Amino acid sequence: MPTNRHWILHSRPTGLLTPETLQLTESPVPTLLDGQALAKVKYLSMDPTMRVWMVDFPQYMPPVQLGEVMRAFGLAEIIESRHPDFKKGEKVMGLTGLQEYVLLSGKETRHFQKLPSIPFLSDTNFLGTLGINGLTAYFGLLDIGQPKPGETLVVSAAAGATGSIAGQIGKIHGCRVVGIAGSDEKCKWIQNDLGFDAAINYKHPDWKEKLAAATPNGIDIDFENVGGDVMQAVLNRMNHHGRVVLCGLISSYAKNDPSLASFGQIIIKRLRVEGFLILDYSSKFMEAGQRLGMWKMTGKLKDKQTILQGLAKAPEAINMLFTGDNIGKLILEI
Amino acid sequence: MPTNRHWILHSRPTGLLTPETLQLTESPVPTLLDGQALAKVKYLSMDPTMRVWMVDFPQYMPPVQLGEVMRAFGLAEIIESRHPDFKKGEKVMGLTGLQEYVLLSGKETRHFQKLPSIPFLSDTNFLGTLGINGLTAYFGLLDIGQPKPGETLVVSAAAGATGSIAGQIGKIHGCRVVGIAGSDEKCKWIQNDLGFDAAINYKHPDWKEKLAAATPNGIDIDFENVGGDVMQAVLNRMNHHGRVVLCGLISSYAKNDPSLASFGQIIIKRLRVEGFLILDYSSKFMEAGQRLGMWKMTGKLKDKQTILQGLAKAPEAINMLFTGDNIGKLILEI
Repeated sequence: MPTNRHWILHSRPTGLLTPETLQLTESPVPTLLDGQALAKVKYLSMDPTMRVWMVDFPQYMPPVQLGEVMRAFGLAEIIESRHPDFKKGEKVMGLTGLQEYVLLSGKETRHFQKLPSIPFLSDTNFLGTLGINGLTAYFGLLDIGQPKPGETLVVSAAAGATGSIAGQIGKIHGCRVVGIAGSDEKCKWIQNDLGFDAAINYKHPDWKEKLAAATPNGIDIDFENVGGDVMQAVLNRMNHHGRVVLCGLISSYAKNDPSLASFGQIIIKRLRVEGFLILDYSSKFMEAGQRLGMWKMTGKLKDKQTILQGLAKAPEAINMLFTGDNIGKLILEI
Repeated sequence: MPTNRHWILHSRPTGLLTPETLQLTESPVPTLLDGQALAKVKYLSMDPTMRVWMVDFPQYMPPVQLGEVMRAFGLAEIIESRHPDFKKGEKVMGLTGLQEYVLLSGKETRHFQKLPSIPFLSDTNFLGTLGINGLTAYFGLLDIGQPKPGETLVVSAAAGATGSIAGQIGKIHGCRVVGIAGSDEKCKWIQNDLGFDAAINYKHPDWKEKLAAATPNGIDIDFENVGGDVMQAVLNRMNHHGRVVLCGLISSYAKNDPSLASFGQIIIKRLRVEGFLILDYSSKFMEAGQRLGMWKMTGKLKDKQTILQGLAKAPEAINMLFTGDNIGKLILEI
């Protein structure tokens, strides 16, 4: 009977993984019962989200518990089956865990799907370009980013598995595409081989000037994988009414930076955060004013005014807004 | 000839306004030329955005320059006119500035509109409920927040000029409305007089527990006026696919907190920031996979894989994602 080796989550990391984080342990591969299948893991996808799963905070899936096999997405081959849906030799994809053998049993089997067999494509494509990363780039860019021909798209972590696909899909849709990556080698790859219009190494001291030069018409879409300073620099060059596809915040996953917690919640909960100014609605002011006026006159809208007397009170009045000393509308009467 | 008193921006504030920030100065009211009108300012709207205008950073309008009359929105009455569009006695609204008299001249006059005369409504209503604040609450909540009956809406700075209207519009649209404010008096007003379902004083130490108790079904819409800790607590209780109407960040305007700069950009540029997970798109995986596969097979999508050998390399591989030592898709082969 073969032995299964697995990585157990031993302690929760605070920064990068240390030798204490994961522990390599062994257990015998179980004898199959009816309705079970055993698969040998061939390839495991290494994804930034694994670092998120290691930490105990509310997220889109339960965090991995201490002592459990570390969660991972992988590709495995059925080597023995007493389950009607799986045959020996078939390949499956799913949350195999960070281990050599995975038991498919009961409702767990729902989470595994069979690998399509497509000529000219190797199996590992289904972990990347045709799998999680390709789908993430596809839906994130097209559904959230809504690229239009001629718009400028910036992709961070642009040489990563998702960013590299997002940028190419942007090119397919007619965008000017600028990638941000962390080495000259990565920049060469995305610009020369993948066809990005420009590539910027954020480790060069003048990278923000280069970003400005590479985005002469500003930025319409940010496919954001990084967060932190990189995102801030991109936001500073966004055009009005731009879209930020919040895909990842990899710069924050290995830190405990509370200032980034808000952005983490936006991803985990698929929130839509939208800024607005009423200036943009001026063509509809008349209609809105009529409805507001009707609500006000019929008592559906009530208000309160705090009125200060005299121009001399202006500085004091402005500060009241921030110290919370007024109720309702604050007005200076002259 | 009367004297005009005006507040000049004398120095840029870093926190609350100090006696150095604004300077009260005088100048003679000018003699009118043809095409000009003179108005006496009656009421000035005191708005948090005034604090934003005082600081020199890129924003939706040019910041006020040192030595200029401080910008302010107000209501004024024409007292003398040599302009064909304005008659003595008419009331106008616009950016009058923080002063006693305003000269309407040339293209400046475009920014002034005449006050509608509506029975039962006092003029000051057009600065608040039927003016900037009412319109902001109306478009922000209805266009960005898209409230549905039965949803839970949380409004911060709920006793403020905009928040108090946003909450009432939420009630009109059938939402459960919870307000967050900074005093028990404000909480009583919004709950007892305005009809909010619950009101929470964020200065009470157990306010987050009270927020949880008041939002048993989570939060669907955040009408955000405050930012910082208040926003974080609300985001932590948001439901999936919730909407954050980013109207203001009043907690940050009198601070120089760089961690809030990103959110400021979202407002100023009317950005849409949206988090997503591919889990939500599973019904469309097939179609997307086919398109990705076709792009891959026709060479429109290129990729690169970094493959590490052996289960033992897992911790090292995961860390590579954060140190940037891989290019393209990172895979562990077992």
